[in-house]
Amino acid sequence: MGEPRWLNEREAQVWKKYRDLRRDLQSAQDRQLLRDSGLSGADYALLVPLSEAPDGLMRSRDLGLEVGWERSRLSHQIIRMEKRGLVTREVCVDDARGAMVRLTAPGRAAIEGAAPAHVETVRRCFFDPLTSAEVETMGILMDKMLDALSQENQ
Amino acid sequence: MGEPRWLNEREAQVWKKYRDLRRDLQSAQDRQLLRDSGLSGADYALLVPLSEAPDGLMRSRDLGLEVGWERSRLSHQIIRMEKRGLVTREVCVDDARGAMVRLTAPGRAAIEGAAPAHVETVRRCFFDPLTSAEVETMGILMDKMLDALSQENQ
Repeated sequence: MGEPRWLNEREAQVWKKYRDLRRDLQSAQDRQLLRDSGLSGADYALLVPLSEAPDGLMRSRDLGLEVGWERSRLSHQIIRMEKRGLVTREVCVDDARGAMVRLTAPGRAAIEGAAPAHVETVRRCFFDPLTSAEVETMGILMDKMLDALSQENQ
Repeated sequence: MGEPRWLNEREAQVWKKYRDLRRDLQSAQDRQLLRDSGLSGADYALLVPLSEAPDGLMRSRDLGLEVGWERSRLSHQIIRMEKRGLVTREVCVDDARGAMVRLTAPGRAAIEGAAPAHVETVRRCFFDPLTSAEVETMGILMDKMLDALSQENQ
């Protein structure tokens, strides 16, 4: 690697805005979820993909890829949610490699109950500040970054 | 609250792009850091604000606000980093409420060593895919969201 391509002043500002946005949006979502639904941000992060999976059933490994967590964080979080009856852990019968996680009926009720207030927070913090044209622009810019990331993460 | 303002199809797509971007960018950064510098993403998240603080010293509480983590996650991470000699914990002499965290010389060396390859990843995944005008636009749109969030998180 040659001389590092340090960020210029404006780039450093925009990079900080991105990190602040990520932190403040997560924080607003986490506080709203806990206050209105008694769920943590980590609970919700796992409940979303599970609720969208057929029969609410996913390989633990796929769930980890979906949320992008390290294995130990995922494992601790699943155990916490199992204790509260939101999910169960199962052994995958077809594949000795894979532990499975299944959404329970109370788990599904929890995310369905949480969704209306959650989407309202997303709307207030993410969509309401932008015009439709700006939402469209944001989507296009994020696509460019996602393309670069798909090469990076290959 | 009235009828939930559910996201329309395009909004749901853009919201998913944002979540994918957040996850994939974090994942690219985490893998790069671990590979090139032996640091986790969590290490780096704490080393950055500490390295920018006067004398590398911060209240534990302020560090938590900076990264937006729950107290238990922060506390576990600080203990892990203390064991590896990257930080030390100190008692705040002026204020019995506050534990302090101090960056050690090896901690500072670790982040300074990690920075060149880290900024290269940020550049490749975040800035290189955009023109300067698009970076400017992204900054303006994120400012609008950050304004909304500052009201939400008051």
